[in-house]
Amino acid sequence: MNFRIAVLGAGPSGLAQIRAFEAARLAGADIPEIVCYEKQSDLGGLWNYTWRTGLDAYGEPVHGSMYRYLWSNGPKECLEFADYSFEEHFGRPIPSYPPRAVLRDYIMGRVEKSGARQYIRFDTAVHWVDYTEKTGKFAVTVRDLKEDQLSTEEFDYVVVATGHFSTPNAPYFEGLNQFPGRVLHAHDFRDACEFAGKDLLLIGSSYSAEDIGTQCHKYGAKSVTFSYRSQPMGFDWPDSFTERPLLTKVVGKTAYFKDGSSQNVDAIILCTGYQHHFPFLPDELTLNTHNRLYPEALYKGIFLEKNPKLVFLGMQDQYYTFNMFDAQAWYARDVIMGRISLPDESAMAADSADWVKQEQGVENPFQAIDFQAAYIRDLLQPTDYPTFDVEGVAEIFKQWEHHKEADILGYRNKSYRSTLTGTLAPAHHTPWMQAMDDSLETFLSE
Amino acid sequence: MNFRIAVLGAGPSGLAQIRAFEAARLAGADIPEIVCYEKQSDLGGLWNYTWRTGLDAYGEPVHGSMYRYLWSNGPKECLEFADYSFEEHFGRPIPSYPPRAVLRDYIMGRVEKSGARQYIRFDTAVHWVDYTEKTGKFAVTVRDLKEDQLSTEEFDYVVVATGHFSTPNAPYFEGLNQFPGRVLHAHDFRDACEFAGKDLLLIGSSYSAEDIGTQCHKYGAKSVTFSYRSQPMGFDWPDSFTERPLLTKVVGKTAYFKDGSSQNVDAIILCTGYQHHFPFLPDELTLNTHNRLYPEALYKGIFLEKNPKLVFLGMQDQYYTFNMFDAQAWYARDVIMGRISLPDESAMAADSADWVKQEQGVENPFQAIDFQAAYIRDLLQPTDYPTFDVEGVAEIFKQWEHHKEADILGYRNKSYRSTLTGTLAPAHHTPWMQAMDDSLETFLSE
Ligand SMILES: Cc1cc2nc3c(=O)[nH]c(=O)nc-3n(C[C@H](O)[C@H](O)[C@H](O)COP(=O)(O)OP(=O)(O)OC[C@H]3O[C@@H](n4cnc5c(N)ncnc54)[C@H](O)[C@@H]3O)c2cc1C
Ligand SMILES: Cc1cc2nc3c(=O)[nH]c(=O)nc-3n(C[C@H](O)[C@H](O)[C@H](O)COP(=O)(O)OP(=O)(O)OC[C@H]3O[C@@H](n4cnc5c(N)ncnc54)[C@H](O)[C@@H]3O)c2cc1C
Ligand SMILES: NC(=O)c1ccc[n+]([C@@H]2O[C@H](COP(=O)([O-])OP(=O)(O)OC[C@H]3O[C@@H](n4cnc5c(N)ncnc54)[C@H](OP(=O)(O)O)[C@@H]3O)[C@@H](O)[C@H]2O)c1
Ligand SMILES: NC(=O)c1ccc[n+]([C@@H]2O[C@H](COP(=O)([O-])OP(=O)(O)OC[C@H]3O[C@@H](n4cnc5c(N)ncnc54)[C@H](OP(=O)(O)O)[C@@H]3O)[C@@H](O)[C@H]2O)c1
Repeated sequence: MNFRIAVLGAGPSGLAQIRAFEAARLAGADIPEIVCYEKQSDLGGLWNYTWRTGLDAYGEPVHGSMYRYLWSNGPKECLEFADYSFEEHFGRPIPSYPPRAVLRDYIMGRVEKSGARQYIRFDTAVHWVDYTEKTGKFAVTVRDLKEDQLSTEEFDYVVVATGHFSTPNAPYFEGLNQFPGRVLHAHDFRDACEFAGKDLLLIGSSYSAEDIGTQCHKYGAKSVTFSYRSQPMGFDWPDSFTERPLLTKVVGKTAYFKDGSSQNVDAIILCTGYQHHFPFLPDELTLNTHNRLYPEALYKGIFLEKNPKLVFLGMQDQYYTFNMFDAQAWYARDVIMGRISLPDESAMAADSADWVKQEQGVENPFQAIDFQAAYIRDLLQPTDYPTFDVEGVAEIFKQWEHHKEADILGYRNKSYRSTLTGTLAPAHHTPWMQAMDDSLETFLSE
Repeated sequence: MNFRIAVLGAGPSGLAQIRAFEAARLAGADIPEIVCYEKQSDLGGLWNYTWRTGLDAYGEPVHGSMYRYLWSNGPKECLEFADYSFEEHFGRPIPSYPPRAVLRDYIMGRVEKSGARQYIRFDTAVHWVDYTEKTGKFAVTVRDLKEDQLSTEEFDYVVVATGHFSTPNAPYFEGLNQFPGRVLHAHDFRDACEFAGKDLLLIGSSYSAEDIGTQCHKYGAKSVTFSYRSQPMGFDWPDSFTERPLLTKVVGKTAYFKDGSSQNVDAIILCTGYQHHFPFLPDELTLNTHNRLYPEALYKGIFLEKNPKLVFLGMQDQYYTFNMFDAQAWYARDVIMGRISLPDESAMAADSADWVKQEQGVENPFQAIDFQAAYIRDLLQPTDYPTFDVEGVAEIFKQWEHHKEADILGYRNKSYRSTLTGTLAPAHHTPWMQAMDDSLETFLSE
């Protein structure tokens, strides 16, 4: 096909887009020219661990928010690619909650099997995207990090797959600027060992707070205090954990909370989420949203309604991950290749408004899971992405919620049945709380 | 005057530029329109302390590299503005080595006395600068951080005063990615208390290593190991300090050095300097240099030879600071206002080549001080910046070097005589090693 597509980012979403086109090419279709720009030196997105924080070796913001000893916080059966099972990749069934390196290996496996790598320009950061109404083309300006050189190329479509869990949302609380100890955002959290023996304060009551808190406990923190804005997590925490309302101020090492209580702490971790941040997009092309199930102004959660040649992948709050990105990428591919046609702008807006209205009715995690399942099913229907049991996966998510409620330090010892292969995952050789070594080798050893 | 100047950054250098024009205006001259863009919420540059590291509240790289309890590492008599003495600002003589807040107060004092603030657009980050040969104008694109909005304005001159101690140079050493403890660059160092009781490894043998090492010692670190690439600092360190050759690798908590020695450490601080980094400049306008006394391609260390309407301030390695920035700013002002005319490109290049050759002959700190003194004298000669005793200041720098050699933990207890007022600074009420509170109030209390 005589046109060009830029894919920005080679994390799970960007790779899904490349894989979608590759799948069409292997099936005999004529596909457009694809260039994927990735600022890291390898593919995998957040799943690449980096010891760096802040700015990278080239002065670009560090993308990585993952940390050492991170284990999947959902069952792997929920994120299985429909066209590449875990069993196919590892040659045998593996436990349900793998550590980061194992999931990264799985992502890489599907990609290396395909010709995806050839499309990717590594160590290349996207700096600016411009759209010219008259020509209908995008100009994408990138910086070759190793050569420290800028260059610009033209494209007919741009797929933004740069993620949205890398630019910290870090509110200020009175006294943080004088706190005699470390204050960091979850984005910069790397190694729990640093906090052994310490009293920790974590602000936030979502996944980062929960997981960093339990991990620090596992690696020897003396106590963990969570501070919530809206509501406590309410798990059945061990004695060294406390949940308190919002932090009001810090004086010296003492943290004060909204209920008048206080607590001495050695370090403060802001687990206060992330910002959707696109420094390379002009105002008229950008996406303004918080972390929600259905960002506004995106038709099908994908196409910028004002300019649907600008495609966004993975911008949702995520229960479903890898398989949702696939569903989006296959749909986007089919629109780009003319297999699906888009309605006009007002029809797109009406469709989105309907979803947003449904989203506003979502009242608890169970409904959120059903909402995201319905969204994915809607995307899958017109494409040739291998159908998978979206509802079956939703059921696993619901079990997972119950297992977390029952045992927040033990839920990762549970096993689930793959909706793809029908196999029940084996138990891991070591309960999660005792599994201190998170390497692929140790995880896979029998 | 019927043209416009953009000043990028409101740190000491950018403020010097504004002050230079203000001085001309107060003396009755017609001055151009000035717009200063500053991404922080206040003026002062590095001298503003921030608890943040990595990215700021708006997703922009945090500029601040200073830390709590930072004290001037040179005598204040060496950086005194020639048109505003410390005695004038504080109303009485003060000791020679003030903490950060006191120096910041001094910088602010001169500025607030003038009308400088009116020119500055705070919370505004420069994103892109373009030059159009045909019109001879620069287009400067900035992001209003609070409104999250981009806008572009045209200028005849651009003065880059964004500093060069904010983008870390952070080399990788084998094993850093598996080190069970904190690894950080000096840019992210904030509070020494975090390292109390710890064994620290600091890579680098320049000012950051020296000062962060001694500060951590002061606030309770168990031991400090420095690792040098070229040569040790060679000070007469107390017993808990060691200097070792370059780190070769880290295995677990054990650091191995080039001489085969090893050491167990709890945290690693890369004091490996900074990169000159201008993400807002296109390749043809950028400055490529390392931290040196005379960056190439800048006539008088200021004007981009290829396009002298692009001005750089403070891009040198710095013995002299505030008064050097003033000397540069006054010179730049006079060129911009047509009071000094620039020679043609080849004459500029020849002049720079000569300076660079002299710089290459510099063999030790004493010669470096003399070199920078000669550079400043050369700038001062044609302008009306109040003359100051550049050589007298050089002598103070040399005494400082000797005082450091004699007593690295005690040199800040020394006093020097202001070349401006002739007053010998009083001794501080508390020796530096015992002065744990670095507030302005405590420093100024009698
Ligand atoms: C701490 C943490 C833990 C998580 N754990 C899980 C989990 O257990 N299970 C799960 O399913 N999901 C998890 N997630 C969710 C995660 O978002 C997805 O798994 C997935 O990584 C998202 O893929 P993505 O491609 O959309 O974004 P990313 O993985 O963020 O990839 C984006 C890519 O774009 C690149 N990029 C960004 N900006 C530029 C630029 N300007 N120029 C060029 N390239 C650029 C980045 O380098 C990166 O490679 C976790 C997220 C976080 C933050
Ligand atoms: C840790 C440390 C300690 C130091 N201690 C001393 C000392 O004791 N004595 C001494 O004399 N010198 C010291 N210095 C040297 C210091 O470089 C100078 O004192 C001085 O701050 C340099 O001034 P500047 O204006 O050139 O740069 P900066 O102070 O760095 O100011 C640059 C300004 O530009 C702004 N900026 C940057 N990028 C953008 C953008 N894209 N858009 C808008 N605004 C932007 C920044 O926010 C900042 O306000 C120290 C430096 C460091 C790193
Ligand atoms: N594999 C793993 O184990 C793992 C670990 C960590 C993260 N993750 C993933 O990372 C992603 C991001 O999770 P996240 O927890 O970082 O972000 P998040 O889910 O968006 O949650 C943000 C949290 O910060 C709170 N918050 C925001 N602003 C605040 C403020 N001004 N004051 C106080 N609290 C504030 C929110 O409180 P309110 O509830 O009041 O809004 C919420 O609790 C998720 O996809 C998650 O799955 C996975
Ligand atoms: N007020 C204060 O007390 C204070 C405190 C800190 C800093 N500062 C200021 O901050 C500025 C910057 O100082 P700085 O020390 O950060 O930077 P710097 O003076 O540029 O020194 C950089 C150091 O890092 C080393 N280095 C660079 N790359 C390396 C590599 N790949 N491997 C090993 N070592 C490497 C260099 O070694 P080589 O010698 O081998 O090149 C050098 O020792 C100075 O102006 C200083 O005055 C002031």
